[in-house]
Amino acid sequence: MNEIKNKITRLIDQQRKGYIELLQKVIREKSVMGYEDSAQAIILEKCRELNLTIDLWEPEINKLKMYPDFFSTRTSFLNSYNLVAVKKGTGGGRSIILNGHIDVVPEGELDQWSEDPYTGVIKDGKVYGRGSTDMKGGNIALLAAIEAVTEMNIPLKGDIIFQSVIDEECGGAGTLAAVERGYQADGAIIPEPTDMKCFIKQQGSMWYRLEVDGKSAHGGTRYQGISAIEKMMFVLEEIKKLEIYRNNQITDPLYKNTPIPVPINVGMIKGGNWPSSVPDAIQIEGRCGIAPHETKEQVQGQFQQWMDQLGEKDSWFKEHPAKLEWFGASWLPNQLSDSHPLFTTLERAHTETLNKELVVEASPWGTDGGMLAHVGNVPTIVFGPGKTELAHFPNEYIEIDKVFEVAKVIAHFLIDWCEMDEIKY
Amino acid sequence: MNEIKNKITRLIDQQRKGYIELLQKVIREKSVMGYEDSAQAIILEKCRELNLTIDLWEPEINKLKMYPDFFSTRTSFLNSYNLVAVKKGTGGGRSIILNGHIDVVPEGELDQWSEDPYTGVIKDGKVYGRGSTDMKGGNIALLAAIEAVTEMNIPLKGDIIFQSVIDEECGGAGTLAAVERGYQADGAIIPEPTDMKCFIKQQGSMWYRLEVDGKSAHGGTRYQGISAIEKMMFVLEEIKKLEIYRNNQITDPLYKNTPIPVPINVGMIKGGNWPSSVPDAIQIEGRCGIAPHETKEQVQGQFQQWMDQLGEKDSWFKEHPAKLEWFGASWLPNQLSDSHPLFTTLERAHTETLNKELVVEASPWGTDGGMLAHVGNVPTIVFGPGKTELAHFPNEYIEIDKVFEVAKVIAHFLIDWCEMDEIKY
Repeated sequence: MNEIKNKITRLIDQQRKGYIELLQKVIREKSVMGYEDSAQAIILEKCRELNLTIDLWEPEINKLKMYPDFFSTRTSFLNSYNLVAVKKGTGGGRSIILNGHIDVVPEGELDQWSEDPYTGVIKDGKVYGRGSTDMKGGNIALLAAIEAVTEMNIPLKGDIIFQSVIDEECGGAGTLAAVERGYQADGAIIPEPTDMKCFIKQQGSMWYRLEVDGKSAHGGTRYQGISAIEKMMFVLEEIKKLEIYRNNQITDPLYKNTPIPVPINVGMIKGGNWPSSVPDAIQIEGRCGIAPHETKEQVQGQFQQWMDQLGEKDSWFKEHPAKLEWFGASWLPNQLSDSHPLFTTLERAHTETLNKELVVEASPWGTDGGMLAHVGNVPTIVFGPGKTELAHFPNEYIEIDKVFEVAKVIAHFLIDWCEMDEIKY
Repeated sequence: MNEIKNKITRLIDQQRKGYIELLQKVIREKSVMGYEDSAQAIILEKCRELNLTIDLWEPEINKLKMYPDFFSTRTSFLNSYNLVAVKKGTGGGRSIILNGHIDVVPEGELDQWSEDPYTGVIKDGKVYGRGSTDMKGGNIALLAAIEAVTEMNIPLKGDIIFQSVIDEECGGAGTLAAVERGYQADGAIIPEPTDMKCFIKQQGSMWYRLEVDGKSAHGGTRYQGISAIEKMMFVLEEIKKLEIYRNNQITDPLYKNTPIPVPINVGMIKGGNWPSSVPDAIQIEGRCGIAPHETKEQVQGQFQQWMDQLGEKDSWFKEHPAKLEWFGASWLPNQLSDSHPLFTTLERAHTETLNKELVVEASPWGTDGGMLAHVGNVPTIVFGPGKTELAHFPNEYIEIDKVFEVAKVIAHFLIDWCEMDEIKY
């Protein structure tokens, strides 16, 4: 067994150069929402090379709309292909979904990047570019792991189901489409940027919109009106208190290093329509975190109740309640026990491969793991080579060594999890 | 003399019905910016009936642009006519400008009006409609006063210069155009809504824009960013302190009943571009009051200095100073001594006509009086029948009796101010 694993390690080291080039190549394709096809084509080509069974399709929006957790700003997925590539097992073993998204968020202000975000420049052992950490580096690690076990012709009992999905950044429609298409497994790993830690719990989130009313008046006699901005300032303080209250209740030691396990972010504010008028309505939009053990409905109820109590502190809100609504995207939270074999198997593979303990944490963001776990009923953990703090930022990069460390851990995991049938070499 | 004044009073009472109809007629024309022509045509017709010398023109924007106090969002004044109608005096007496604006602000939300804002419904001695109080009621009072002295064929030495101007609500271009055209006088009265008081001082105002920066981060780890909304909340508190500081320095007894003589209004707020991101820039726009004795430049300097000191309280602002700019419209303040003959003459006419003392106050808003006084060098006071608190609001109305009280006071004022030459009747 150890011999096999050592061979895998050597094989992955040999493949290193080719996979770095593959990573650069896929970073060069700007796969923002609606433009995933050219990047997906590169992944497809590699899957064909690995002799995987290919399933490539444009998700049908009407089928997805039947799921309450579906969200997308799109009207169709024309030209946005989801890719699933399967290495069928010999039967009897545990199957695994290896899921990564191919879409990236836009690069933002170009002048904040030292290099063009779509060239895949290598400096100091890092590949730079939009999507390098989130999460093309992780996807490449998955392919390298699959190639290693394929190359060695190791017969695994369980199926390996590689998924290169679209739309993770905008609501998870790609993973939902794979669930809808019937892909199931005994476990799933998503190599989102965890900096080599394992996130067995993930914060979910959803978007809220809150409107606060005032009473208009001329700015020269502003004391005759009620400023919706001042009322909103009061509500913002109350939202901070709600955030403190919610986070005080989280005692999970996994969150001990996280300043705010489930933040309530205020992302946007707007209101008023004339400099010389007292504004009579202000709106905010934000993101409310969902703890791994919570449901969306629980959190929505608590937020609503908090807002319903505003009138007790400021009677204005008795007559003019703050209007709270939930809209747009949501990301389901996820949690797995640290005694679940999916985790313990990865933990062992990690220790044996890298000679160090796997650090376990809870993630401050949701992933498609929520969709896989809650809609697909697939136990899911997150473990990948990138760094959270680089995701969505200028000068995003991935450390090349980490990509191949993850590849080795996952290759070793696959052998343990899916089980070898018979050693033919 | 008393006989003349009694006759004027009787004459105005006789004209009452016709002028109420004229007021309704002019309210029915929705004279918002750019659509003043039909309302102006009604005033023009009346001026012709009164045998005044008519000057009707479309202001030339290029001429106005040479004045530093010019502001307009327009690119031309095509079809927006300014009207000046003069009753030439026999010579030697003091001349007077009687100035009223024909433009109205939009009606806002229709469902907040009990009646259509453009029908001029009469209920309980009040005419309702947009512009009734601000300030078509005042304009009608001027015309009734002029008709009374004209009708009686009283030969006045000084010129009566009636001005029906456009664009008061959006920067004062109409009055500036009349100044630019050369209209001058020894004094001016503007019957803006003062509720029968005389405003010898007026608050000026100007618009500011303030931007505060933050540092973006993902909402799930919002503690890694700096919320521009939170920074803006701090700045809003500091602006409140500046407002308190400024108003504490105003000791003029005319302001003793005004809660905040020179308010700093925050009219609009906007910023952030994604619910799940920590916002990195928030902008506010507002109106800063200018005390009657202040210049724009003094107030701008003080506001800037206040913002420059933010860094002493929160070091964030040392590296990221709040960006303050002044834009768009401004309304010049105005002040006149209560010993000026323009005021004392009106005061006497008021006491003699209505048998009660004229209440003197300072206005919480600017008028075209700032433009007349500072650009035209015409001493100006404000005295009219409407109520400030109804202006710009739904269900705006004017009390009919007040319109004719003002007409009588102004007619009597005209005789005293312009001086009778020879009594021919």
